[in-house]
Amino acid sequence: MVAFDKLQHPHRRYNPLLDEWILVSPHRAGRPWQGQTETQTQSERKPYEPDCYLCAGNTRANGKQNPMYENCYVFENDFPALLNESVEPTKSTRFFKSVPERGVNRVVCFSPNHALTLAEMTVTDISEISKTWQQQYIELGNLPYINYVQIFENKGSVMGCSNPHPHGQIWAQQSIPSLIKRTQHQLKEYFVENRTNLLSDYLKEELKAGERVLFENNSFAIVIPYWATWPYETLLLSKKNHKSIAEFSEFDHLAFAEALKLLTVKYDNLFQTSFPYSAGIHQAPTDGETHEEWLFHMHFYPPLLRNAQVKKFMVGYEMLAEAQRDITPEQSAKILKSLSNQHYKDQKP
Amino acid sequence: MVAFDKLQHPHRRYNPLLDEWILVSPHRAGRPWQGQTETQTQSERKPYEPDCYLCAGNTRANGKQNPMYENCYVFENDFPALLNESVEPTKSTRFFKSVPERGVNRVVCFSPNHALTLAEMTVTDISEISKTWQQQYIELGNLPYINYVQIFENKGSVMGCSNPHPHGQIWAQQSIPSLIKRTQHQLKEYFVENRTNLLSDYLKEELKAGERVLFENNSFAIVIPYWATWPYETLLLSKKNHKSIAEFSEFDHLAFAEALKLLTVKYDNLFQTSFPYSAGIHQAPTDGETHEEWLFHMHFYPPLLRNAQVKKFMVGYEMLAEAQRDITPEQSAKILKSLSNQHYKDQKP
Ligand SMILES: O=P(O)(O)O[C@H]1O[C@H](CO)[C@@H](O)[C@H](O)[C@H]1O
Ligand SMILES: O=P(O)(O)O[C@H]1O[C@H](CO)[C@@H](O)[C@H](O)[C@H]1O
Repeated sequence: MVAFDKLQHPHRRYNPLLDEWILVSPHRAGRPWQGQTETQTQSERKPYEPDCYLCAGNTRANGKQNPMYENCYVFENDFPALLNESVEPTKSTRFFKSVPERGVNRVVCFSPNHALTLAEMTVTDISEISKTWQQQYIELGNLPYINYVQIFENKGSVMGCSNPHPHGQIWAQQSIPSLIKRTQHQLKEYFVENRTNLLSDYLKEELKAGERVLFENNSFAIVIPYWATWPYETLLLSKKNHKSIAEFSEFDHLAFAEALKLLTVKYDNLFQTSFPYSAGIHQAPTDGETHEEWLFHMHFYPPLLRNAQVKKFMVGYEMLAEAQRDITPEQSAKILKSLSNQHYKDQKP
Repeated sequence: MVAFDKLQHPHRRYNPLLDEWILVSPHRAGRPWQGQTETQTQSERKPYEPDCYLCAGNTRANGKQNPMYENCYVFENDFPALLNESVEPTKSTRFFKSVPERGVNRVVCFSPNHALTLAEMTVTDISEISKTWQQQYIELGNLPYINYVQIFENKGSVMGCSNPHPHGQIWAQQSIPSLIKRTQHQLKEYFVENRTNLLSDYLKEELKAGERVLFENNSFAIVIPYWATWPYETLLLSKKNHKSIAEFSEFDHLAFAEALKLLTVKYDNLFQTSFPYSAGIHQAPTDGETHEEWLFHMHFYPPLLRNAQVKKFMVGYEMLAEAQRDITPEQSAKILKSLSNQHYKDQKP
């Protein structure tokens, strides 16, 4: 038997948040690619677009007019996936099981400037987004029929985003969604067993190891998780045992903004492109429980693999059997660490 | 409180195979789309391409030459995700947990004709693929270090397929992959409780209801599952309590081929395009257990939503919280049922 070498041998890694495994095939990174490539839309964007339904002062598809907002602007999604209506529970059978779902969908414009992204905003401006998320989490979470608030951003057309104006979404709902329920179960089980927090304990191990730590300030750390599935996936974690964004101080908002700025700048620098991703916050449900098992964290799932045109496809084997990656999380960490903290557009030649 | 209407009200449906829920937002089907569209490559394909590394007689990237094969041709993947090497188990810690994984990756060319897809092949030719899958499942499954055999096809560049030559893949491995483990758990639990098969019982209910049944012959049925997540997702099920393809008779191979032909023709007819999908067989693991809880079935996950250019994006909310769909499975069933069984290219104007 050959001795294990994590840079040569296929192996599976365990993700304790979802209780599942990831197949890692490090030897396969050199595979040639003749498949689909993404078109790059690198054209200069203007700070104001008369046709954009998110720009300040413009009229949206449904005839409503945006105010002349200056920082963040929050409004109800014009095409919500959830409706705020109380519907009578249905009669389910064993195999035809369904329940009505109640909720609220909102859009959060990050800036009136159409041309910006997090990577090109100032830390102070990003901290305004953090404060807006905090207000929204508290306001929506306080509604009696809202038990979970999902804050997220789809960035880039490859991630299903239909408008480049910097914005994110909030889906708040009655039930705990499937992936949160699984995470909750794992966190709870660990807490009951150890009386400590799974993610805080994990972060301690990562900080000790150092290899996968991308960034650290007094309130937050960013790691490439040991079980990362996307090529450049990252995980931002609270160092202060915050269960949710509701507990952030003025200082934490700035520290969070600093972390987001650094990460998104590095991402843009990786392939010298406005780096696409889906990102979102996982935090304590708003169901009235104390949730000591929770730790505020944020996942970044970026699809790109080799360059601005070639993404990782999570298809056949991945959809049917198990997530799979080629480049190891340690290799990704090394590459991300080596990148400048200054945005490539601002770098002097 | 309003009475529940499944065509109007957001609701969640339960998937008993994975023990998770799907968010259905039927009222949202009319949402406008300004986001990414797929480019359609509808150019006539020739039956032989000198540059294709899957065409008969051609030389592949690694210098090996394909034989002048006539039906199916199976070979070891030149860029395998798994390696057939015995590697010493690693020392894992609580949070840094990994195990070496051993396996075999093969490519299955469905036909020497570069221009074909399942939808345009004859039932007899498709039954040859079924026989090849059977041989492979038995041969690989008999290897002492192979406990699960994943047979699948990625079709179309939007599903990460880099070569349009009709082909699928087989990834056979030592461990039971994460999604199979979850399915196995659900099937087993049901079997222990009821002494009957979850999927056979489910199929009985679907056949009784009729609404979501797309096709039926003596050996197989195709349904749009009650918990379908992709807009036109389908599930093909054995009506004969087959646990795996190993149990197929000559007759079953033909009946399976008939079902595959009908489904892929309907898919092509839906948007008058060579319809992309990832599809794969789920069946009993080859770990030596009897697996009475298993029933041979095949999942089809097609990404398209509205037309040949607009797909459903499983992104932010879906990656972080829960799968989501707009059009209901019943609406999809109605649309698929209404389509001709004759391929649009063969229809007289
Ligand atoms: O093996 P292929 O066809 O080159 O690759 C395709 O299928 C694999 C299995 O689903 C995926 O891991 C790849 O991301 C995808 O591009
Ligand atoms: O709400 P949007 O931005 O129109 O839509 C986007 O994000 C949603 C939430 O992740 C997804 O359901 C859609 O498929 C995607 O296109």
